[in-house]
Amino acid sequence: MMHDCVSIVAAGHSPFGRLHGSTLEDLIVQVTRQALTDAAIEAAEIDALFLGHFNSGMVPDGFAASLLLQADPGLRFKPATRCENACASGAAAIQAGIHAILSGSAELVLVVGAEKMTGNSTAEVTRALAGAGYQNDVEEAGLSFPQLFGLAAQQYRQRYHCPMASMAAIASKNHANAMANPLAQMHKVMDFEHCNNVSQSNPYVAPSLRLTDCSLISDGASAIVLASARRARQFRREVLIRSMAQVNDVLPIARRDILAFEGPQRAIHLALRSAGVTLGDLGFAEVHDCFTIAELLIYEAMGLAPRGEGHRALDDGTVRPGGRLPVNLSGGLKAKGHPVGATGVSMHALAFAQLTGEPIGLAASNPEFGLVFNMGGMAVANYASVLQARRG
Amino acid sequence: MMHDCVSIVAAGHSPFGRLHGSTLEDLIVQVTRQALTDAAIEAAEIDALFLGHFNSGMVPDGFAASLLLQADPGLRFKPATRCENACASGAAAIQAGIHAILSGSAELVLVVGAEKMTGNSTAEVTRALAGAGYQNDVEEAGLSFPQLFGLAAQQYRQRYHCPMASMAAIASKNHANAMANPLAQMHKVMDFEHCNNVSQSNPYVAPSLRLTDCSLISDGASAIVLASARRARQFRREVLIRSMAQVNDVLPIARRDILAFEGPQRAIHLALRSAGVTLGDLGFAEVHDCFTIAELLIYEAMGLAPRGEGHRALDDGTVRPGGRLPVNLSGGLKAKGHPVGATGVSMHALAFAQLTGEPIGLAASNPEFGLVFNMGGMAVANYASVLQARRG
Repeated sequence: MMHDCVSIVAAGHSPFGRLHGSTLEDLIVQVTRQALTDAAIEAAEIDALFLGHFNSGMVPDGFAASLLLQADPGLRFKPATRCENACASGAAAIQAGIHAILSGSAELVLVVGAEKMTGNSTAEVTRALAGAGYQNDVEEAGLSFPQLFGLAAQQYRQRYHCPMASMAAIASKNHANAMANPLAQMHKVMDFEHCNNVSQSNPYVAPSLRLTDCSLISDGASAIVLASARRARQFRREVLIRSMAQVNDVLPIARRDILAFEGPQRAIHLALRSAGVTLGDLGFAEVHDCFTIAELLIYEAMGLAPRGEGHRALDDGTVRPGGRLPVNLSGGLKAKGHPVGATGVSMHALAFAQLTGEPIGLAASNPEFGLVFNMGGMAVANYASVLQARRG
Repeated sequence: MMHDCVSIVAAGHSPFGRLHGSTLEDLIVQVTRQALTDAAIEAAEIDALFLGHFNSGMVPDGFAASLLLQADPGLRFKPATRCENACASGAAAIQAGIHAILSGSAELVLVVGAEKMTGNSTAEVTRALAGAGYQNDVEEAGLSFPQLFGLAAQQYRQRYHCPMASMAAIASKNHANAMANPLAQMHKVMDFEHCNNVSQSNPYVAPSLRLTDCSLISDGASAIVLASARRARQFRREVLIRSMAQVNDVLPIARRDILAFEGPQRAIHLALRSAGVTLGDLGFAEVHDCFTIAELLIYEAMGLAPRGEGHRALDDGTVRPGGRLPVNLSGGLKAKGHPVGATGVSMHALAFAQLTGEPIGLAASNPEFGLVFNMGGMAVANYASVLQARRG
C-alpha cells in the first residue's frame, strides 16, 4: 500500500533460457548496465540497490548482494541488499526499493532479480525448489513443487471438476504468446491437443501434472530503476507504481485450504483497492503461472470467475490476447521461462514496457493500468502491484 | 540515515550455543513470542515482519520468512520478508523494518534474526560461510573465512607490526565480559596468556589465527519490535534509533585494501554524523568481532586509534569495561556466540537492554548513546547504528 510516489523509469532484461556462458554475476552485471544505460544516468546517482535471488543451493554465491557493485565502479560503497521470498524474491526486492524511496533514504533505486539454474541437473533444481516447502513435517518436506501443485489439481477435480483441459488451454495460450517475445526461453507453438494429451513428449511429471503444465528451468535476470516522484519527471518514460501489496500465508499446507489461494486473493484485492481501480480498469495482467493450475486458481483469486469456474475466463476469451484482460502476454513463466529470483522483476520490467507503449512481444490494447502478481511457494508469499501509465 | 522516528520498544533473545533440541523454526518462534510478550501487544497489531537469516546450505529451509507466522495465528497474512547480507543479515532485516516504518506502510514491525549452525560439522559450516566470499575467482573462492581474516593479520604484521598480542587481548577481554552474560555461549575465563600462546588447546586454525581468535559456531535467535514515533510512546521502554547507515563494498578482496576497512569506516562515520554525535558521546559499542583481528581493525575504522595503533585502545583501557568506550560488553561474537543471521539483531537487542537500564550482563555506565556495528563478509556489507536512550 502506498501513495502514488514511486515510479519505474527504466529497465533491463536478459534473454531467459539456458545461458551456458553466463554466471550469476554475469547476468546481474548485464542487466544492471542495461538498466543504467536505459535510464541514461551515471551509476553514482543510484542511492541503493536491491537484489531478488532465491539460490537455495543452485549456485555457490551465498552472499550475492554486492555482486551488483561489479557492474560499475560508481556503485562502490552504495547499500546493496538481497531480499528473498522464494519465487517472489524479485517482488520482495522491488517492495524493499519502494520502501527505501518512500522512507526518504533514497531517490533512485536499482532493483535486480536474477537466477542461474541450468548449471544443475533437473533433480538438483527440483531439490533446491523443494526447499521452499515446509521442512518440519516429514510428508510436506518430501513433496516436490510439481507434486504440490499436482495435489492442487487433484483437489480441484474432487471439489469442482477436472481442470486438466483448462490447464492445457493455459499452456497453449502462454506458448502462443511467447512466440512474439524475443526474450522468451521457448518459441514453439504448443497446441491445445498436444498440451492436453499425455504422450511420450508430454509425460506426467507428477500426478495430474504433465510436462506442459510446468514452467521452465531457466537462467536469467532483469532490472528496473525506481525513482521518487521528485526525480521521476526527469526521465524519458515513467510508469507509476500505484500500489504494491504483500501478503504472506503460513508455510505448511496442512494449515490451509490450498485451493482457496487466500494469500493471492488478499494481495490482489488489496492492491486494486489501494490503487482505486477494479479489474475492468486493467489493460493486462502478468501473473505467476509456475504451473498451469496456478494460473487457473489465480483467475479465481482475482475474481475473473467464481470458484471452480476459472475456465470461463479462457472459454470466453477474456484472458487471451485481444480479450478483456489478457493474462501473460509475455508467455508467462510457462514459456518466457522462470529464473525464480528474476521473475518478479521481469514481470514489472515487461509491464513497464507495455505501459510506455514499447511492449516486448504482444501489445495490450493501449493500456492505462496493468496488474502484476508474483508468488513465492504455494500461495505463501504474495505480491500484487498495480502499475499506471503516465499520460500527457 | 534517517530522522529520529523509529524506536526499539521490545526485544527477545534465545541463549546462544549448541541448542540440540531446537530447529530454525523453533528458534524463530521462541524469540518472536518473547518479543511480543515483552512488548505486551497482540500479534495482530504487528504490521510487517522481517527475518535476517544467512543459511547458505546450513539448514534445508530455503524459504524461511513465513516461519515467523508459525509463532501466532494472529500473524497470518502479514507481510514477511527475509533479508540477507551474509553475517550482517540481522542488520539488513532491521534496516528493512526501519524503511517499512518510515515509508508509512507500517507502524509496528517485528524483526527476527536467526541461525541454526550446529546441525552441521565444522567442515560443513566452514564451507557454508565460505559461500560469503567471492566465487568467481579461483583463489578467492578457495579461501575459508579464517584464512581470509588470517591474511589480514599477516598483512597487518607486514604493514605495521605483529597484531597477535592485541588479538589475544581482545579474545581475553571478550571472554571475560561474557562471564556476566547469561545468554552467552561460553562462560570460561580465557586469560591473555592462554589466548596468546599456541598450544594443543589453542592451535592455529589458519595462518596467524589461533582458535581463540575465532568466533563460535552457534545456534540462536533474537528479535526486536520497532515502532514509529507515533506508536513508540505507548510502550514501557523506548530506545531511539538515531541513525542507521549501510555501506556495501565490492566483494572481491583483489579489488581493495583489506586492512583499510573502508566500508566499516564509512558506515560508522556516516552513522555518527547522521546522529549528530561523536565517539566521545558513546557509552558503549557492540561491534563485529567475527575474528579478533576484525575488532582491532574496527577500533581503527572507528577512529579510536590511528591506523596500525588499534592496540592503544586496549592498552589504555578505553575499550575495557569501565573504560571510555567499552566494546562488546556482551562478550561479542567471540564469546557470546555468532549464529550469523541472529547477530545483528542480537546486538541491537542487547544495546536496547543497556539503554533501558536493564543490561543483560555487564552494564555500561549510565549510557545515553550506544553504537552497533554489524558486518557481512570481510568488510563487505557494513551497517552502523547509533541508538539513544529516551530520558524523562
